[in-house]
Amino acid sequence: MPHIKLDENLAGIRSLAQFRPDTGKALYDLAQALLKQNSSLGEADSELIATFVSHLNGCHYCKSSHGSVAKYLYGDNASTVDKVMEDYQNAPIPEKLKALLTIAKAVQKDARTVTTEIVDEAKALGASDREIHDTVLISAAFCMYNRYVDGLATISPTDPAYYEPMGERLAKFGYVPPQK
Amino acid sequence: MPHIKLDENLAGIRSLAQFRPDTGKALYDLAQALLKQNSSLGEADSELIATFVSHLNGCHYCKSSHGSVAKYLYGDNASTVDKVMEDYQNAPIPEKLKALLTIAKAVQKDARTVTTEIVDEAKALGASDREIHDTVLISAAFCMYNRYVDGLATISPTDPAYYEPMGERLAKFGYVPPQK
Repeated sequence: MPHIKLDENLAGIRSLAQFRPDTGKALYDLAQALLKQNSSLGEADSELIATFVSHLNGCHYCKSSHGSVAKYLYGDNASTVDKVMEDYQNAPIPEKLKALLTIAKAVQKDARTVTTEIVDEAKALGASDREIHDTVLISAAFCMYNRYVDGLATISPTDPAYYEPMGERLAKFGYVPPQK
Repeated sequence: MPHIKLDENLAGIRSLAQFRPDTGKALYDLAQALLKQNSSLGEADSELIATFVSHLNGCHYCKSSHGSVAKYLYGDNASTVDKVMEDYQNAPIPEKLKALLTIAKAVQKDARTVTTEIVDEAKALGASDREIHDTVLISAAFCMYNRYVDGLATISPTDPAYYEPMGERLAKFGYVPPQK
């Protein structure tokens, strides 16, 4: 049960954006800028990083919702996303993306542990400054979204089927706050 | 030295908002909504929570900048802010604010450790749902800002005098992204 009184017909961040619409708008604007067309990483890889960080933070709602967006975008029957969550170093993804996931992981743990070495490794594999920037900000932002959703104990449906249509909707139409 | 090429005349998040203005705008809009007039907690206590979380995350730039805003707003020669950073449980602040700082601390560590007990304690001391919400979101948001600033190794001046005029400016005029 949520720690504060929220609309029980809404789950996760949607219930919080309805509770306080002005911060909700800024949070959705940030997700839209970070994960959609303007992301230097492309939408699928951006969502994959968001899912990976949510997985590390143990946030079921964010992992499930962004995981379903990533699965929809990769369109490979969930194979890539599941393999990255299990063991990203041996997943069937480009080496550059693995290096970016290593940076995202350091940011999630403690951002002061992002070393010149792991950044240089990503650069050597072709990552641009903008891609490194976007990776750090996606990881940092999901350290916020995850804490917001779990710190207020929002509703987090356990049935994977709940998240499937959400994944398709977010992939197609982007991040728009819930309407009253 | 920053991990990516940033304007060397700007420090901390200001250099990042200039690097990527669209995400910068969403991040400044969020800070403005969370820390200024619309905060249920009042501006001084909101900035105090932001400073406390930045302190826990070891983010020198955010702790110094928001600490100087809080010091300006409390207007007590920095006494309250310094005492809260040192030992908030024994600082000269209301019991309700101590209970909210306990929630902020749990969110910073791992949001899944926010228990019904610590939330009920804050409620018993008079905290509203909106104040609890705002505390959780401020803590979560600074877990993002701190990671963003430190994950890219932005410039963080060591001289406390650097942050004093910034504290007064942010207190008076709020959060506005840097102009080119």
